[in-house]
Amino acid sequence: GIFEELGVKKPDVSYALKNRSHGGMTGELLSEIETQILRVKPDYVNVYGDTNSTIAGALAAAKLHIPVIHIEAGLRSFNKKMPEEINRIITDHISDFLFCPTHRAVKNLEDENITSNVHHVGDIMYDAVKLFENRFKLPNISRKTSKEIALITVHRAESIRNRSELTKIIEFCENFSDRFEVVFPVHPNTKNKLVEYSIKTSKLTLIKPLKYTEMQALLRQSSLVLTDSGGLQKEAYFHRKPCITLRSETEWVELVEAGWNTLWKEKKSKFRPKEIEEYGKGNAADQILEILKST
Amino acid sequence: GIFEELGVKKPDVSYALKNRSHGGMTGELLSEIETQILRVKPDYVNVYGDTNSTIAGALAAAKLHIPVIHIEAGLRSFNKKMPEEINRIITDHISDFLFCPTHRAVKNLEDENITSNVHHVGDIMYDAVKLFENRFKLPNISRKTSKEIALITVHRAESIRNRSELTKIIEFCENFSDRFEVVFPVHPNTKNKLVEYSIKTSKLTLIKPLKYTEMQALLRQSSLVLTDSGGLQKEAYFHRKPCITLRSETEWVELVEAGWNTLWKEKKSKFRPKEIEEYGKGNAADQILEILKST
Repeated sequence: GIFEELGVKKPDVSYALKNRSHGGMTGELLSEIETQILRVKPDYVNVYGDTNSTIAGALAAAKLHIPVIHIEAGLRSFNKKMPEEINRIITDHISDFLFCPTHRAVKNLEDENITSNVHHVGDIMYDAVKLFENRFKLPNISRKTSKEIALITVHRAESIRNRSELTKIIEFCENFSDRFEVVFPVHPNTKNKLVEYSIKTSKLTLIKPLKYTEMQALLRQSSLVLTDSGGLQKEAYFHRKPCITLRSETEWVELVEAGWNTLWKEKKSKFRPKEIEEYGKGNAADQILEILKST
Repeated sequence: GIFEELGVKKPDVSYALKNRSHGGMTGELLSEIETQILRVKPDYVNVYGDTNSTIAGALAAAKLHIPVIHIEAGLRSFNKKMPEEINRIITDHISDFLFCPTHRAVKNLEDENITSNVHHVGDIMYDAVKLFENRFKLPNISRKTSKEIALITVHRAESIRNRSELTKIIEFCENFSDRFEVVFPVHPNTKNKLVEYSIKTSKLTLIKPLKYTEMQALLRQSSLVLTDSGGLQKEAYFHRKPCITLRSETEWVELVEAGWNTLWKEKKSKFRPKEIEEYGKGNAADQILEILKST
């Protein structure tokens, strides 16, 4: 698992969900996390990102008056059809400490009248890349060519929800195969859909899903990233790789503004990217700890 | 039950909770309401007020992209220690239609950058009082005196959480027994606490809990209300009765501003109340329907 892979202590408690629907998962987690909070009696509850476990943890804690720390606060896609967007908004509104990766995130919170204990600390995923860098290890890939690598990932519900959308994405990526070897670690859900829709793609190098440390190593070796993932867009920048986002919007507007990222439907302008100071130096966690200690 | 009492159709589905903790209840309801939404496939989900079922219904619907209608939107006590406050904030932020009882509620939403589909329609509890007025029926009470009646209710967690708080409230209410017969329908939780803390109170007329229609009839007959309930503060006004709130803050600031309501720790100024136009005329429901039909 990820814990052995990174040499990190395993969690004392982990939980296997019975439900698969969004509301069911969230409800189940809310009840389960409440039980754990009552058992452990923590001083703080720390939640990260925008998943169903994020909102369940925040809600369970807030209802028990335990201060909630939200890391990666303030992100907004302004698209409430994304389940992540609802999770973000709610978590931010019940958090007591809000740690933002960007200035825009701070501004988004301000616009919703959230201004107490809001801190810009940079991006904690950058911390992870720096912290685990020496563990990154290339996977074995049967290369078809000796071209430079373009790395693709596709896994979001919107990308694979029907044949026409997924076909468009695959064809878009195939266009890069003249210049690059296009390497595609295929997420299990995406694989099922490729089979279901009978989409064939001999121009791409399909490989099995990668571990975090393998993905980072492959990213470091690539020359271009094509992805619908929010996390990988940023990680591409942490390795200073240009990225094309396979979506019509992104939460990480700084990447687009600085020239590292282009939305796939945009005509690409010249590639002349700038550094993004606000993502920090990979020491967000230290800053968060300092701030919490001083309150 | 309340449905027979009011001559209203019983709900097609009702649900008996297994959990009693806040997070457990909310989680259980979230999962259960999701199941019902998937079965019924409604065009809208309508939630009311600030209870755990309010937030569970809103969250289940929002995650399934069913438009959420929140009635009694925009209330704020600005005290996040109240579980109701968290329920309010979250529900408002994921609702698609927000119907506010007051102008202040509209302003509260504006301050959190919620401005789409926000409508001031007045207070729907006023609708209920007008709609069911002819069913109001006085309970049998063994009167101790022929004085005018002061009606008390005490049930909130904060009021009964320890001996000293509940004693203070009872002693405060006893002060009114010279001038009034102080009638106190005792909520079961409050009764348990009076026994547990051995609080005796011969100056008050303790009676069993009342049905809605009995409470309204008694209210109509009373000259003064003493309560920690948010709903009863407003209902006192709908019957044009002065009220003293047994809390240090109230969501219904219009009542205080108009002179109908005083917080118990305040020195009472002269009783010279004004009409509160913004609570409406008891036709909030009709306005809500008109607005929804026209969208």
